Amino acid sequence: MTTASELPSLRLDATREQVLERATAIVADAWRSFDTARPEQPQIGERLQALLRAELPQAGSSALGALEDAAQMLDVSLAQPRPRFFAFVGSSGLEIGVLGDLLASCFDVNLAVWAGAASEVEDQAIRWVSEFIGFPAAAGAFTSGGTISNVTALAAAREHALPGARRTGVGDVHGALYCSAEAHYSVVRSAELLGLGSAWVRSLPQDDHRRLLPAATAAAIDADRAAGIAPVAVVATAGTTLTGAVDPIAGLADVCEERGVWLHVDGAYGVAAASTLSAGHLFTGLDRADSVTLDAHKWLFLPKACGVVLVRRREDLHGALAHEEDYIPHERPDHHMVDITLEYSRPFRALKLWLAFRAHGADAIRAAIERNLGQARLLHRELGRHDDLEPLCGEPMLSVVPFRHVPSGVADLDAHNARLAQALQEDGSVWISPARVDGKVCLRPCVVNYRTTDDDVRALVELTRELGTRLAR
Amino acid sequence: MTTASELPSLRLDATREQVLERATAIVADAWRSFDTARPEQPQIGERLQALLRAELPQAGSSALGALEDAAQMLDVSLAQPRPRFFAFVGSSGLEIGVLGDLLASCFDVNLAVWAGAASEVEDQAIRWVSEFIGFPAAAGAFTSGGTISNVTALAAAREHALPGARRTGVGDVHGALYCSAEAHYSVVRSAELLGLGSAWVRSLPQDDHRRLLPAATAAAIDADRAAGIAPVAVVATAGTTLTGAVDPIAGLADVCEERGVWLHVDGAYGVAAASTLSAGHLFTGLDRADSVTLDAHKWLFLPKACGVVLVRRREDLHGALAHEEDYIPHERPDHHMVDITLEYSRPFRALKLWLAFRAHGADAIRAAIERNLGQARLLHRELGRHDDLEPLCGEPMLSVVPFRHVPSGVADLDAHNARLAQALQEDGSVWISPARVDGKVCLRPCVVNYRTTDDDVRALVELTRELGTRLAR
Repeated sequence: MTTASELPSLRLDATREQVLERATAIVADAWRSFDTARPEQPQIGERLQALLRAELPQAGSSALGALEDAAQMLDVSLAQPRPRFFAFVGSSGLEIGVLGDLLASCFDVNLAVWAGAASEVEDQAIRWVSEFIGFPAAAGAFTSGGTISNVTALAAAREHALPGARRTGVGDVHGALYCSAEAHYSVVRSAELLGLGSAWVRSLPQDDHRRLLPAATAAAIDADRAAGIAPVAVVATAGTTLTGAVDPIAGLADVCEERGVWLHVDGAYGVAAASTLSAGHLFTGLDRADSVTLDAHKWLFLPKACGVVLVRRREDLHGALAHEEDYIPHERPDHHMVDITLEYSRPFRALKLWLAFRAHGADAIRAAIERNLGQARLLHRELGRHDDLEPLCGEPMLSVVPFRHVPSGVADLDAHNARLAQALQEDGSVWISPARVDGKVCLRPCVVNYRTTDDDVRALVELTRELGTRLAR
Repeated sequence: MTTASELPSLRLDATREQVLERATAIVADAWRSFDTARPEQPQIGERLQALLRAELPQAGSSALGALEDAAQMLDVSLAQPRPRFFAFVGSSGLEIGVLGDLLASCFDVNLAVWAGAASEVEDQAIRWVSEFIGFPAAAGAFTSGGTISNVTALAAAREHALPGARRTGVGDVHGALYCSAEAHYSVVRSAELLGLGSAWVRSLPQDDHRRLLPAATAAAIDADRAAGIAPVAVVATAGTTLTGAVDPIAGLADVCEERGVWLHVDGAYGVAAASTLSAGHLFTGLDRADSVTLDAHKWLFLPKACGVVLVRRREDLHGALAHEEDYIPHERPDHHMVDITLEYSRPFRALKLWLAFRAHGADAIRAAIERNLGQARLLHRELGRHDDLEPLCGEPMLSVVPFRHVPSGVADLDAHNARLAQALQEDGSVWISPARVDGKVCLRPCVVNYRTTDDDVRALVELTRELGTRLAR
């Protein structure tokens, strides 16, 4: 006879088969609903509002009921996998990746230190993704996202530029970062966190294509050196969140090599496109970087979180992060990942990328990125067909296409486009966020979803004109 | 007719029903296998070794085959949910939490900014977990784990102690952290990352129960202040990774309040036990802390990653992390989470904790923690029954019970216990890691798993004696 003390202490009121069946039915329904655009983004109804006000439940309740409520909550949340989610830099929730997350969560392996085959799979996935983008990584790790990847790489750069800083503090020698004026905030955040200070982030001028100018970068570094300021790293953005501009990596690599300065490529959004025929040339010089950030939950279509940080020399991460502790002996030094990762405990995020490369193959993933690139160009062409639409940038380098609605007779175009963005969100059949480019309020669609079709792109144009025209009356 | 451009660009060679069925069968098998201890930890066989050497696949392959290979890889990985996984501070992979991860991954909501009901669920889960442990949180967020939670809280503390540091850098005013000599490395890492420097972490003496001494803390703060060093924060550990000691929070709160110094409680491992009858008293004063770290993937049994950071005043996080960017407008300031989180894009980690509280209820979760506490005491009693086993600490405060095998006639007990730890890992029927307590190599089991039974604890004792005796011959 099995007594209570021989059973797990937490048990559900439904069988495993029942909860698995219910959860997979929710997933299957969701996937079907992601196949096509939904007519609207539904609101949070009264029943859910009441649930959201509920106090901490002291007693348990129906597991199937809880799952059903979760499904209803998710239905009224912003699911980025929907084909007309164009806001920010979205996620696709690739289906094999979702199953990878399920398996990783079930086995709950911890990649902090060696964890059996999972550690080897992480190594292999790092090798694969490095090869996919063409970066000669000596080491790397999966992270919770681009910000953690950038902080990790720049912590290594800081220790490289200011040796001993991890022990003594950054002290009174100022260290500077150099980046495009439109680099992601995580560069500034890295400077803040790392004790360098945001005032020492040199947000530098861009060329006509909104790319960081190597000459301006060189001049800024030289001026800082002359003033006793230590250059910590140049951050090449590939591409920017605002417009998808890819900084000239080769030119920046020249600047960095001549001066012995660390080159970090923040490719969280765009570096996956280095694998493509039509955009690959934009990333020339990537193989000369010291470190690279990539978010596989962006343009490799996987569910969050699937960040990646790669370095050319393992010892750079090791020098910034390695340590000894009595409670975590170096049993397998090659896989003592806490010596090269900022996080400590880490879930098995590599599995979903490994599964995606296995099941879909690099060619199909590359083709899916290529399709998004083509859709961005399609969107740009569509804008050109209508007098009341104005693209704010030239032909897209990657897949962000900022534009605004400019109907005749509207004086305040900023207010009009802000209202239009809100009207589009209220309509809910597409999801798009406003942005500011050169001070102008605009719509800023980004196409990074393998479910998005050409029709979805055309629908965005049509709906924008329809709602915009109505608002302008 | 649907043309290729109207379909998702990535498609599997199996139907959704087939891949879901296969994945859930793997999960059901895994859960069954977690019900009881396995006789050994299997090795990575030749077929898997060959797979691990494979180059990046250019073409896709069978989705069901890839899932099957993933299952085999996971079977030879260290799955922390197994009932005899006693190493580090493990994870349980609570089943309803695994399903929460599945749903969150499928809908791939991004909690960076307002995302519909998911944002409200995160708020509610933060309220619930705060109430569960008894901390009056004004704000909080889910993070990727304890290190990120600690860095986040200490970044807020740094800005509090050194106003403007995020902008100007930490400069030449040194800022110090105060903690137990056995605080987690993430405190040192925070000092390193934040530009303070590990040299300014005051690792302070402990009392007989390995708890940070408030008087020593007060003296260190006062000495630093007199020397022009800025106290940034006291970190109370609750409890330590090495032995489970819980620092005297109330005494440290007195010290901090008198001196206007930030009190952070690193409860990544242990603070969930603040909810229990038998250990709750150890956490007296928790409600007076400025910030708290909790890992719900530790003693709330959920799968990784499910870190939590809580603060008493929302503006403290806001002051350290808020910002304006052209590409991410403040549409819903109350849920502009990137203003209070270190990470940017964030998966919907709150969902699994929300589901666990809904389905199991706080009472059952509290009882499960209580059972682990009882099992640690049971283990300590079992050690006392055998002359060849030596506990290295008194009765456990939480659920870490360091001990070693001390058979008569063995001169080098460190070497013996190191060999014993290795022999136990090779046997594989329990999983335990060695550690060093007061310089002595020992075994360091930690009981934080809802599947662990009293029999599992007794089996650890028996196997240790059996293998240890054999090694000592």
